[in-house]
Amino acid sequence: MHQQAIRELNERFRCQIPLTDHMGLEVSSWDGFALRMVAPLEANINDKGTGFAGSIASLATFAGWALVTLAVEERCGAAEVAVYRSEIRYRRPIDGDFEARCCLPEPAQMEELWQALTGTGKGRLELAVSVVQDGEEKVQFQGAYAVRLIAKPG
Amino acid sequence: MHQQAIRELNERFRCQIPLTDHMGLEVSSWDGFALRMVAPLEANINDKGTGFAGSIASLATFAGWALVTLAVEERCGAAEVAVYRSEIRYRRPIDGDFEARCCLPEPAQMEELWQALTGTGKGRLELAVSVVQDGEEKVQFQGAYAVRLIAKPG
Repeated sequence: MHQQAIRELNERFRCQIPLTDHMGLEVSSWDGFALRMVAPLEANINDKGTGFAGSIASLATFAGWALVTLAVEERCGAAEVAVYRSEIRYRRPIDGDFEARCCLPEPAQMEELWQALTGTGKGRLELAVSVVQDGEEKVQFQGAYAVRLIAKPG
Repeated sequence: MHQQAIRELNERFRCQIPLTDHMGLEVSSWDGFALRMVAPLEANINDKGTGFAGSIASLATFAGWALVTLAVEERCGAAEVAVYRSEIRYRRPIDGDFEARCCLPEPAQMEELWQALTGTGKGRLELAVSVVQDGEEKVQFQGAYAVRLIAKPG
């Protein structure tokens, strides 16, 4: 089920969000809890030969969006997810292919989201995304996402 | 002088940062104090037909970077500028071509930067960037940038 969701999501955003295709972004794993999204350095390089900050911010924002979308859609069906606030800290330069890693917050936060979605069809979720190269965290991201179910349950 | 700096900067990043070319980013004005950078919706659209959050974050981050780079290079010569922290608030969706607007902080902050650069060749600057569509602010961005002069003065 997760493999099919990954394939469908990668296909959907490659067609509908042209920039993600130019950046070479791809969900590489998703197990119902944790997600990884990869980005090649070459398409995302800057004038100093390191990762372009705009690409890194895009990757992190988008990985968080993909995590929330996959988790919500697997449980509740089609949903619109949008980031409304984020913060990012660029700790060290990136000089090779990189990836974003994120996982769902602790169960109490998820329970709040599920209850809000069940009750009103809307909810919010904050999560952390780590941007990693060769196993080392280079960039830290925190994002807040709004969720709206397309078909309200009940 | 400013017109030539705009042309050179646009040319430099179009060649060296491939993503900015895919996004159609371009400094449209710079007067030594304020900068505008434009982005077309078409290249930066998402699956909902509005501006892709990753593109908006890239535009804002990059506009701040361009402002700091132009201001520092006009006064002090070649410099390396890098964002190290930022925060962004997506207030309303963007559904047309958009632009980033930013200007240099108040004189006291600039004076601190110039003194740091003169003394050590290094400095930091925080600034706000507004992302605007049809004259309305849609997204607010705050970025912190580190500056290092390539040839230390003195």
